[in-house]
Amino acid sequence: MDHVYKKIELTGSSPESMEKAVENAVAKAGESLRNLRWFEVVDSRGQIEGGRVAHWQVTVKIGFTLDD
Amino acid sequence: MDHVYKKIELTGSSPESMEKAVENAVAKAGESLRNLRWFEVVDSRGQIEGGRVAHWQVTVKIGFTLDD
Amino acid sequence: MDHVYKKIELTGSSPESMEKAVENAVAKAGESLRNLRWFEVVDSRGQIEGGRVAHWQVTVKIGFTLDD
Amino acid sequence: MDHVYKKIELTGSSPESMEKAVENAVAKAGESLRNLRWFEVVDSRGQIEGGRVAHWQVTVKIGFTLDD
Amino acid sequence: MDHVYKKIELTGSSPESMEKAVENAVAKAGESLRNLRWFEVVDSRGQIEGGRVAHWQVTVKIGFTLDD
Amino acid sequence: MDHVYKKIELTGSSPESMEKAVENAVAKAGESLRNLRWFEVVDSRGQIEGGRVAHWQVTVKIGFTLDD
Amino acid sequence: MDHVYKKIELTGSSPESMEKAVENAVAKAGESLRNLRWFEVVDSRGQIEGGRVAHWQVTVKIGFTLDD
Amino acid sequence: MDHVYKKIELTGSSPESMEKAVENAVAKAGESLRNLRWFEVVDSRGQIEGGRVAHWQVTVKIGFTLDD
Amino acid sequence: MDHVYKKIELTGSSPESMEKAVENAVAKAGESLRNLRWFEVVDSRGQIEGGRVAHWQVTVKIGFTLDD
Amino acid sequence: MDHVYKKIELTGSSPESMEKAVENAVAKAGESLRNLRWFEVVDSRGQIEGGRVAHWQVTVKIGFTLDD
Amino acid sequence: MDHVYKKIELTGSSPESMEKAVENAVAKAGESLRNLRWFEVVDSRGQIEGGRVAHWQVTVKIGFTLDD
Amino acid sequence: MDHVYKKIELTGSSPESMEKAVENAVAKAGESLRNLRWFEVVDSRGQIEGGRVAHWQVTVKIGFTLDD
Repeated sequence: MDHVYKKIELTGSSPESMEKAVENAVAKAGESLRNLRWFEVVDSRGQIEGGRVAHWQVTVKIGFTLDD
Repeated sequence: MDHVYKKIELTGSSPESMEKAVENAVAKAGESLRNLRWFEVVDSRGQIEGGRVAHWQVTVKIGFTLDD
Repeated sequence: MDHVYKKIELTGSSPESMEKAVENAVAKAGESLRNLRWFEVVDSRGQIEGGRVAHWQVTVKIGFTLDD
Repeated sequence: MDHVYKKIELTGSSPESMEKAVENAVAKAGESLRNLRWFEVVDSRGQIEGGRVAHWQVTVKIGFTLDD
Repeated sequence: MDHVYKKIELTGSSPESMEKAVENAVAKAGESLRNLRWFEVVDSRGQIEGGRVAHWQVTVKIGFTLDD
Repeated sequence: MDHVYKKIELTGSSPESMEKAVENAVAKAGESLRNLRWFEVVDSRGQIEGGRVAHWQVTVKIGFTLDD
Repeated sequence: MDHVYKKIELTGSSPESMEKAVENAVAKAGESLRNLRWFEVVDSRGQIEGGRVAHWQVTVKIGFTLDD
Repeated sequence: MDHVYKKIELTGSSPESMEKAVENAVAKAGESLRNLRWFEVVDSRGQIEGGRVAHWQVTVKIGFTLDD
Repeated sequence: MDHVYKKIELTGSSPESMEKAVENAVAKAGESLRNLRWFEVVDSRGQIEGGRVAHWQVTVKIGFTLDD
Repeated sequence: MDHVYKKIELTGSSPESMEKAVENAVAKAGESLRNLRWFEVVDSRGQIEGGRVAHWQVTVKIGFTLDD
Repeated sequence: MDHVYKKIELTGSSPESMEKAVENAVAKAGESLRNLRWFEVVDSRGQIEGGRVAHWQVTVKIGFTLDD
Repeated sequence: MDHVYKKIELTGSSPESMEKAVENAVAKAGESLRNLRWFEVVDSRGQIEGGRVAHWQVTVKIGFTLDD
């Protein structure tokens, strides 16, 4: 059978690390979507407050199966 | 709290200007989504009719908050 | 009237050809969306099994009208 | 019938706005070509004189039908 | 002797396949230009009608010799 | 004589238009630098508030002469 | 266990189609490498002879497992 | 009021992690600049010594307010 | 003396972090190659299982000296 | 007055150097076009024969004034 | 110790060659900055006068150490 | 017959010029590979020592025939 995947683009943030920002985005996607398969990092940036990195912000595309 | 944002990609059009094309896309997004935060211009193009620019077409990614 | 289009990103797959992979993605999109207008190829890749191409996987952005 | 389109690359300029720079490029193309169909913005820049923007310069690809 | 090549950008279309869209563009170029040497695929997209791919549209740069 | 130019990267913003955002960036650069020559648009985006575009934000590289 | 993959870059050619050009590259890679897993299309171009497409040339990155 | 931001490009390094390399660049920028607002990761690389990663090197653009 | 470097492209994976994925790729390269000098991150992605990030997959180019 | 410029894409070649390849392309363009103004290097490559560089091939976009 | 580098972007020009244009940019940077370490070519272009290349213009990013 | 080509990525360096850096990379490749056909410049950079360009470093992809 031929699968079809959909990709959505989310930006996760975290005060801790880039990995944690990605995990937050994936967790959020998992609240409303089943069958998440992979992610691709699109962009990494962050907010600076008081001269220090306050939030890591990582934009990911998340792919999931559309078949049922 | 760690926010998560989603981005969608829309193409707005307008006979007037590139700004108006963007505003049309944002207005359309606002009909069904709350908490729109920012847009990023991805692509600018347009249709030519009778040797003149008939429509400006601007593709934007629009980011909005997923948290509630 | 000023149209607004939305683009979604799908990956279709097929054991036959890149065209068939695109057609599978478009057909899947058509199950839940009306007014599909165009697609743009974003990425072409595939799986190899037993030293041969097993699946063609083509990612497309598909544009459709949001007006009603 | 299968259309074939050709694209040419022009840079229009205007002291007024980016839209006017595009329109100047399209108008110039229309002097020698019929059947212009669309344009794609490739690059936007401009000249600064006396500390102010003196000319907007927008490079576009302009597509037109080759069939007759 | 040092050759000089020129590249033009064409978009071919076909209801059948991406290869046929390229071949249509090359055939059209050959009507007015001799010494075509190579092509480079720049962009692949297409029109959707009735929920199905109606036309494959492939943009190519075509290189040809300017020497004589 | 061989000129050397330096480029700096600024983001201007304006509630009115993309052109005005660029002009604000150029005007700011002109407060501390002489001999501004050209700008190149790098990125266009903006803030959305209350479902409407509140600020246009355009990032430009601005080139100026280093010679004296 | 944590896999490591290596990617190599090959250009396959075929007088028939882009798919066949990819398959030729994959087949060649399979002569000396085991555990080929996927390919990514990097570039599509071709040679023109006598005003017609003579060879399709597709460059792919081919990924394979380094573990043993 | 319309803000204007300037972006500078720094490469931070760290033997520990990519996050630490970014934080070092931000800390260095903060020694001479006030009002740092955000960073964008441009490039990630590193030095290898003795077959192991010795330094993570991350290039970031750092944006700060020019208004006063 | 003029050095010549070769770059190879590897994808490392790790359930822990992006840094660990890079280190695994570097370690694997070091099993068969001496004189590894630097790496450049090309792409970051990962697998999702059970709604969580299961593996970080980072593709790097690794440069090493060819001289002897 | 508002100028409009056209850009064409040529590939020059030379057995000597990249500069000479560009100069050959510019000289060829000058045989049929007046008012050449600038060029932009798009791509640099070359042919290898007998294990040595035989021809440098540089692709340039050449801009010229369309006004008269 | 963890170094931090800053990159600035300069465009050098020369009537002679691309290398000389880079060297002029580096020399200019060296008038006001110590500890220059490397450059990266960003863009190569030039001015044409009288149908010939009049100036080579090469834009480089120049990296230097911020530590002291 | 359908050829298959492989591309490898090398960085050559030279204190003299960018062309010489490419030639050094090609010469090194020729020590272990036959049937080198073409190269593509990927990246140009260099080392600065004492405020002057000390080494030109050019990264090229070199293509060669895999058939025998």
